[in-house]
Amino acid sequence: MSTATAYAATAPDAPLEKTTIERRELGPNDILIDVKFAGICHSDIHTARNEWGGTTYPVVPGHEIAGIVAEVGSDVTSRKVGDRVGVGCFVDSCGKCEACLDGDEQYCSKGVVQTYNSKTYEGEFTNGGYSTQIVVTENFVLGIPEGIELDVAAPLLCAGITLYSPLKHWNAGPGTKVAIVGMGGLGHVGVKIAHAMGAHVTVLSQTLSKEEDGKRLGADEYYATKDTSALKDLRGKFDLILNTVSVNLPMGDYLGLLARNGTLVELGVPEKPLELPAFNLLANRRSFAGSMVGGIAQTQEMLDFCAEHHIGAEIETIPAEKINEAYDRAVNSDVRYRFVIDASTF
Amino acid sequence: MSTATAYAATAPDAPLEKTTIERRELGPNDILIDVKFAGICHSDIHTARNEWGGTTYPVVPGHEIAGIVAEVGSDVTSRKVGDRVGVGCFVDSCGKCEACLDGDEQYCSKGVVQTYNSKTYEGEFTNGGYSTQIVVTENFVLGIPEGIELDVAAPLLCAGITLYSPLKHWNAGPGTKVAIVGMGGLGHVGVKIAHAMGAHVTVLSQTLSKEEDGKRLGADEYYATKDTSALKDLRGKFDLILNTVSVNLPMGDYLGLLARNGTLVELGVPEKPLELPAFNLLANRRSFAGSMVGGIAQTQEMLDFCAEHHIGAEIETIPAEKINEAYDRAVNSDVRYRFVIDASTF
Repeated sequence: MSTATAYAATAPDAPLEKTTIERRELGPNDILIDVKFAGICHSDIHTARNEWGGTTYPVVPGHEIAGIVAEVGSDVTSRKVGDRVGVGCFVDSCGKCEACLDGDEQYCSKGVVQTYNSKTYEGEFTNGGYSTQIVVTENFVLGIPEGIELDVAAPLLCAGITLYSPLKHWNAGPGTKVAIVGMGGLGHVGVKIAHAMGAHVTVLSQTLSKEEDGKRLGADEYYATKDTSALKDLRGKFDLILNTVSVNLPMGDYLGLLARNGTLVELGVPEKPLELPAFNLLANRRSFAGSMVGGIAQTQEMLDFCAEHHIGAEIETIPAEKINEAYDRAVNSDVRYRFVIDASTF
Repeated sequence: MSTATAYAATAPDAPLEKTTIERRELGPNDILIDVKFAGICHSDIHTARNEWGGTTYPVVPGHEIAGIVAEVGSDVTSRKVGDRVGVGCFVDSCGKCEACLDGDEQYCSKGVVQTYNSKTYEGEFTNGGYSTQIVVTENFVLGIPEGIELDVAAPLLCAGITLYSPLKHWNAGPGTKVAIVGMGGLGHVGVKIAHAMGAHVTVLSQTLSKEEDGKRLGADEYYATKDTSALKDLRGKFDLILNTVSVNLPMGDYLGLLARNGTLVELGVPEKPLELPAFNLLANRRSFAGSMVGGIAQTQEMLDFCAEHHIGAEIETIPAEKINEAYDRAVNSDVRYRFVIDASTF
């Protein structure tokens, strides 16, 4: 057992507070990581504030973790002390079900162990990356290649894979037209990755306020969704639309933007069920799909891809004492484009 | 120009009446068909009663047409007098757009010319198969192989291809688990085709009243959806679900029946938008899709497949004067499983 300094949520309406938590003793396959940077994901905020229900307090959020290996268990062969590593949204899975065997651990039929606010199969409550150290079993520790700095790599562990996985699954690449709905923490990374994959990339954002950034990051086109005439002109244009906006958009209109055999992928979970006019699916044989992060092997592939293409998140680094302020700003979309906590300030 | 005896709807609330219509003079690529049998599709009823709006009266419904070639235009090479032929839901398309070039004429970007209640590109109003004769351009006339009787072939032209196309598109076959929701005109043909493709077939019907038929036609399993515990046991089981029921089902529950990467295909258009809880899509990377009949080449492939596997619709043949009674019975699901009008009685 070891102790770590951390920031924990203690109640839905209380600010996160500095605290001390215990990390488990290293098992033979465990890795102790000195956390260097932890991204702030919207899921952290939803959980800290119990907006999805099911939060157990106190909880330490954080599943966009980048750090350095501090110590390894006796049987660990994949990593050594000093390695640059990352941890994403989950830290264990059954390893035996069809999903796990296919490398889709996120859909593990036993239920994946999430990085925080979850229970390990041994019954231990999980605390995340807003912390000086974390212990994770080696199969769920990713390698961060030399080509990416740890601070801009951190958000890739959730935001990056959340976009990379559907882009790969639905074959984005040269000759495909991809639209990214929302130019935020998820969307901006999606623009970079889709562009690097060779797709024609269009951003659909509420306004044009981030157009310059969007084009700099790789967007070929940029439209304001408030301008409904622009949307009319885009009908039937896209092979793949990734919706990063967790609100109840008029889905019929967005489905209408898909070409024949196109797919609109929902990456978030809006509060209310989405309303879909069936006709917009039947016309052009369209699909409406969901996707949830990505498996471990694919996450490693994404990190390697990002290193090769010099892709990191656009970040604003903050000290730990600004976490609560950052939460409020993130809710108001007042960040370009991801907050990352400097773990040396815990 | 020639005349044909037909049954037409003259107003939303009026019974269909016997009438005489004109068929156009044969152009060089036209085929004059002596209609032998016409299936009654639910779309006919919706159109006759203007339940979707947009009906122009008087209109002759019918897009499940089987007959014999009576005369061919000067340039027709694909068919000859005496050939057994069929006509489905559409009778022309632009032939130049990407959809047409890919054999997906039903998604023609210029807009397909439907068999009835539509306008040809020349501006002629189309009347369907409840008629002694019909004139159709040769590229939209299908061949009905010797292996299927014309009466049981007629419903394949809409119901058959509506099920065959998504089964092919989403790769139903040996090793896949397919569920058919609804055991009616569409569903019963789906059971036969999916079984012949080698898929494991499950019927999800409101009650078990048609279980014996379902199993005889090829279903491996049969469940009543009124029994919610049965549905719970089926969670995560299916690779492909084809929903033939045009009502607002609790889609979250049905999506929950899909395995990882599974797809639920909507084949009808319920009155109200469908409500989808996004989480049920994200979990297991599920898709919710739509599909609308199938292209001409695929419709021919379907007819050949059905002949090879001795598949026809289960029908109740009626004389023309019973069309109105059949409409009421079809609305009450009182038919096993498709009404077919004997065109010799017009």
